[in-house]
Parts: sequence; structure tokens; C-alpha cells
Amino acid sequence: MKKAEIISVGTELLMGQVANTDAQFISGLLPSAGYAVYYHIVVGDNKERLTEAIRQSLSRCDLVILTGGLGPTEDDITKKTAAEVFGLEMKLHEKTKENLESYFRDTGRVMTPSNISQAYFPEGSVILENEFGTAPGCLIRGSFDGIGKTVILLPGPPSELCPMFENKAMPLLREEGSDVLASKFFTVMGIPEAEVERILTDIIHGKTNPTAATYVKDGTVTVRVSASGQKEEAERLIEEDALVIRERLGKNLVSETSQSVPEILVRLCERNGITLSTAESCTGGMIAEMITSVPGASNVIKSGIVTYSNDAKIGLLGVGRKIIDDFGAVSKETAKAMAEGAARLCKTDLAISVTGNAGPGTMEGKPQGLVYIGVYFKGRTVVTENLFKGSRDHVRRRAANTALNLARTVILENGEEK
Amino acid sequence: MKKAEIISVGTELLMGQVANTDAQFISGLLPSAGYAVYYHIVVGDNKERLTEAIRQSLSRCDLVILTGGLGPTEDDITKKTAAEVFGLEMKLHEKTKENLESYFRDTGRVMTPSNISQAYFPEGSVILENEFGTAPGCLIRGSFDGIGKTVILLPGPPSELCPMFENKAMPLLREEGSDVLASKFFTVMGIPEAEVERILTDIIHGKTNPTAATYVKDGTVTVRVSASGQKEEAERLIEEDALVIRERLGKNLVSETSQSVPEILVRLCERNGITLSTAESCTGGMIAEMITSVPGASNVIKSGIVTYSNDAKIGLLGVGRKIIDDFGAVSKETAKAMAEGAARLCKTDLAISVTGNAGPGTMEGKPQGLVYIGVYFKGRTVVTENLFKGSRDHVRRRAANTALNLARTVILENGEEK
Repeated sequence: MKKAEIISVGTELLMGQVANTDAQFISGLLPSAGYAVYYHIVVGDNKERLTEAIRQSLSRCDLVILTGGLGPTEDDITKKTAAEVFGLEMKLHEKTKENLESYFRDTGRVMTPSNISQAYFPEGSVILENEFGTAPGCLIRGSFDGIGKTVILLPGPPSELCPMFENKAMPLLREEGSDVLASKFFTVMGIPEAEVERILTDIIHGKTNPTAATYVKDGTVTVRVSASGQKEEAERLIEEDALVIRERLGKNLVSETSQSVPEILVRLCERNGITLSTAESCTGGMIAEMITSVPGASNVIKSGIVTYSNDAKIGLLGVGRKIIDDFGAVSKETAKAMAEGAARLCKTDLAISVTGNAGPGTMEGKPQGLVYIGVYFKGRTVVTENLFKGSRDHVRRRAANTALNLARTVILENGEEK
Repeated sequence: MKKAEIISVGTELLMGQVANTDAQFISGLLPSAGYAVYYHIVVGDNKERLTEAIRQSLSRCDLVILTGGLGPTEDDITKKTAAEVFGLEMKLHEKTKENLESYFRDTGRVMTPSNISQAYFPEGSVILENEFGTAPGCLIRGSFDGIGKTVILLPGPPSELCPMFENKAMPLLREEGSDVLASKFFTVMGIPEAEVERILTDIIHGKTNPTAATYVKDGTVTVRVSASGQKEEAERLIEEDALVIRERLGKNLVSETSQSVPEILVRLCERNGITLSTAESCTGGMIAEMITSVPGASNVIKSGIVTYSNDAKIGLLGVGRKIIDDFGAVSKETAKAMAEGAARLCKTDLAISVTGNAGPGTMEGKPQGLVYIGVYFKGRTVVTENLFKGSRDHVRRRAANTALNLARTVILENGEEK
């Protein structure tokens, strides 16, 4: 495996205005081209510190990817700094200049003088076309301290960076050929991270190839198993561990891909021709949003109802006013009536309901984090009581993930095809 | 201003499994305690590289914050490595041991042998209690190359890190007193970044205090103005620029806080006693989710309807079948009927509707990114046609932000209180 580092440039990252999702996206793809990522670095729009960071990374690794700082605003300095480190001149790229001119003509926007700087690149660069914005990227193969290195420059906005990296840069990196790092991701729900670690201790601590590690997010534990080598051999090594993991985790093993929980549910419903709807109170549309973020979800989800007020629960979903008066909006009984109401109203096989107190503060005398989740499926309704610790946002995310997983479990327990 | 760096530890970050939202959160708060953030660094669970990273950061700055690697699993090495760099012994903290024991008793979970390692800290540490998990953090004041430095260790999960950093660590940092970096954020919609840069060129390029910069996300441009100095003086300097920015940006200036677009809309509705509902097709619940993510949204949003299928648009919202047959689901006419249907069904003053093609691919012969947004308000409906470039996720986000801003604009144009 060759070594890579990602340097992201932008004061907005250091000010906490945005998260570095660019580095995340690139890191997810690089191993399949034979590169292991050793560092992410974020520096501000400061020439001296950026120069130092590029030099340090080049001294440690084979490939440096720079993100951000290719735009037309004057604090965008990445391209010039990278050229200087390699001792290269900036050259006007005629084709890019023409593309920029026609882009501005087509979109009816005014081309500012600084836009033209986007058409200058370090000499000898391979230009990476930008289909979703004005700043092209580039790949430079150069020499640093007498050793051949590759530098790739990408624009900062994720909507431009992601397609450019995946479709233009990755094919060039793959051409080089090399051992790869293959990975498999096992999604586990229902048991805490330390317990997963204990169950799989020999796999996680016993070997150097494959390696394995756990991490947890929003109540979902992921086990990653990675093997390096020629593609087929690496995959065979991973499959040996997969057999053991399947056996030991049993029904707590939700998925064996990096598929998200909503993806898993959508595909499961698709395979079994199940339609679904949602009735959300404290998650406020998050479950519907997660499901519809999956391409092809329209085969599965018919509609979703967000009933934030009690009147909406009664008026839209037909929850009995007496149920809310007797048990409260945050109750097992209301969750059940919401799921059944959604299935009836939306005419779906399955309905997911959530009602709870995401906080801040108590509500109806019920603590922050108390959430009832209901799943109606083909005539039967299951309701669970959950207490999630953490902030409002965290409670909502855990509730949504738990609800999606409950729907998955109920479908499988009903004997549908896996 | 003192200098800070953030080192995040975790192979899951380098594998692209999660984004580094911890560094983002910390970076947003540190300036108000007098620290400017110069670097973010991500390293894997590797002792040698972590040691090197900590040493390099300590040689450059006053404060190093380490995130991740405090959990019970054996790849969690941060605490031991930090102690070694400072030459400190690990000591058992009795109170933490007792807290851990009672936490496991209360939650009925099994305490594994590795959990006890969470009660060991570098000698002399100030313990930062963890209210939402088992791994406490700590603050260490030590000496590196003969110079006093501060190191803070925080757990990786955001639900634990965020409250611990904000409530336990920040007060300790603020006690030290110092000049601060005050910032003000101006949210701009409706004009591209390069144009904002041109309009404000003297403010962005003319000075060193305050400094100003732009960045763009999901179609929203943010202008950040930051001044350093004593709190009052810094704020006065920012206000001078704010006067100019207000004057020049006019109605394109959406907000003068770091408030998100949904927060701005919820507060505007609250002030004017406006109730709202949503009718979403391609955004699939995202708008309702964004609104309900704002604490106190229950005073404003009554309900939300996700009508992903045509049958749902007709059955739930009362969109005429003829409208869909004649103009298609992705049309101005459908958007109008959806907004009006939601207002009628949910009995609200305002209703936001979105129907479009988020992709991938064309739909009804309509291109990816074509989105119609409707806003009904007190008897009048406005519909806009939009073409957003980018991926499915990007189109959905831009559509949601644009819809929320259209609702804001319609309310203000109706003469409601700002």
C-alpha cells in the first residue's frame, strides 16, 4: 500500500463553520486505489503555514491531496502554493479559459476578473474537469527531494469535489496499479461497543492482516475488517473473519456492507414488496428524510406524516383524544395509535411511529430522552420504550436509527425474505 | 490571542467512516476563550505517529486538544501517549472508578476489565466529568521544552464530547483571561460568493483587524467578520463593518448571527404568531426535520406531510389528479396545489411545498435538479422554479434551504414584523 495524506485549506474549517466532509469522502475511496491514508491536516488560508504543511506531507508520503482554495476569491491560494513547492510555473490553460467563458455565458452570471485565475495551473498538470462549478482541479506528478510524488488539487465545495474526485481523479490513481486495502463493514445494533470488542477480541487484537476495529455512532456499532494485498487474496482473508463474525454476532449483525440503516430497510422492503409510511412526532421528519435519501426509495415509502402538535395527531392520524388525555402524547398507547393511524391513512403494509421527549427539559413530567417507537406491520403492532442519553439532536438521531432497525427486525421476524 | 491545535485520534476518521465534527464543534467555541485555532490534525490509533503529532503541536502552540481514544477498547491510546509526552505517571482516580461502577450498576450493563482503564489519568490532571458516557476527559497543565502548555483530552463520541467541552473545559479556559477573537456571521442568500466578495472587497481585503472572509455551503454564502482584542473593543470594530455590510447587501442579508436558516424562520414565525406546515415530495421530510431541529419549533410547526407518491399527493393533500396528468408531479401547478392543500389540511397560516427531481436521472422528461417551491401565506401562493446543480443529496439540501428562505421572504414582504 502506498501512503497518502489529505490537506484541507480553509479558515472556515478552523473557525468551525463547516465539518471536513471532503477529507471523509476522499478517505473512503483512496484505499480501493491502493493508498492508505495516514493523516488529515487542516490549515488556514495562510501561505507560510500551507507551504510548511505541504512540504511535511510530501516528505512522509507518496500522494498529497489538497482540498479547497481553488475558487475565484483572493484568499484562495492553494494552487499557487503547490506550484511553488514543486518549483513549477503557472500556465494558462486555454481550454479551461474557454469553458469558464461559456459557463458564465450560459448561466447568465457576470465573470469577475478574479475568475480568470481559475484557468491557470502548474505547468504539466493533468486538468480535472469540474462539471458542477467553475474551478477545475488538477493532478501534478513531480519530484520532491528527488523522489517522485503525486499531488492532486480539488475544489472545496463537496458538490464539486465528490464527483471530480470519484470520476476524474480516482481512475488516474487506479491506473498506477498496486496492492489494495480491501475493507468490509459490519453494522451491529443492540449491544454496546465494549461488548462487541469482547466478543471479537481475537479478531480485533490477534492479527496484523486483516486488521479490525470498532467505532460507534448514534447508537450503531460498526466493525471494520481491512486486509491488504492483491484484491482477491485480501478479500479471501476478510471472508475468513466474516464467517466468525456472522456466527458470533447472530441477529445483532444488521448488515455486512457500509450501507446505512435506511438503505438496509429500503432494500429489504423492495425485495419483499412492502410499502411503508411514517408518523413522527419528536423526530420531526428525520425518519422520512433518511428513507427518502436512498435512491429508489419511491418504490417503498408512500408518505410520511409529521404530527408535532396533539391536534395533528388527533386530526390527521386519528389518535383518540382520550388516549392522549389518559396516557399523554409521550406514551406507549399514543405510539401504537400513531403507527396504526399512519398505516390506515396512507394504506401501507408497514408504518413506523415515534413519539417522545427529545428535550431540552422535561415534558408531561417525562424525562428528556424518553422515546416510544411503534411499528405496525400487516395487522400487528410492536411498541418499544427507550431512554436515550444526550442532547436533543443526539436523542433524535438515536430514535430515528432505532426506529428503522425495529422496522427491519419486525419484518424479518415475520418471516419475510432476508 | 493564544494558539490552539486540535488532534483527533481514530482510524475511523482516516477510513472515511465519520467526518470530524468534533474538531468543528471545538473550533467554533475556542475563539471566545481567547484561542485561535491554527491546525486540525487527524492521526490513526498508532502510538508512534500520535506521539510525533502531539510533540509537533506542543512545539507550535499553547493549547492542544486531543479528541477520541478515551474509550474502553484497547486501541484507545490517547491518554497514555499524552502522559508519556509530558513524562507523567498514570494514576487511578478513585472518584471516577466509583462513578464508573455505579454507572454500570444503574444501566444494568456488564463492566468489562478494560472499563477500569478509563479511571486512570496522567498525574495532576483536572478530571472533566462525562455526563453522557463512561469515559471522563481531563485537562493537564504541564511543561514542554521548558514552556507551560495546556493539553485537554476529550472522548470521541460527539454526544459526550460536546457537553463536556462546552460545560467543563471551556469555563477552565475562560478563567485564564486573555484577549478574545470575537466573530459575527452574516448569512447571505440570492447572490453568488464571487459577487459578495466584489461588493465587500474593501472589508475583506483592506484590513488586518477585523478580518473578513466568505464561504459557501448548500447555496448559502456566509461572511465572517472577526476582530481580536478586549471583548468590547473587538465588538465595536465589528459593528463598524456591520453597518457597511447591512447597507450594501440589503435584502440579500438573511441574518446577522450564526443562526441557521430554519432557526431564522422559526423565530420570525414565533414573533408574528404564524403557524406553518409542510408538503414535501423530493425533499422527503428534510424541511420538517430542519424546522423541528430548532428547540421551541412546536410553537410554530403544526404538521408536515411527505407525499412521495402521486397517490399521496392526491389522497392526502387533495391535489387534483388532472393537475398531475396535465402538468406532471414536477410542475409549478402541483407545487401550488400542494402548498394550498397542506395549509387547508393542517389549518396553518403558512405552508411550504417542494416538488422536483432530485435525481439520479431524468423524471417525467425533466432534468435532475429541477425543483418547484411553493409558499402559501394567508390566502396568497408564490411558486418559484429552480435548477440546482449537483448530486441528489446536494439538490435536496439546496431545495430545502431555498424553500425556507422563500418562506422568510414571503412573510417579510407581507409586512410582518422583522
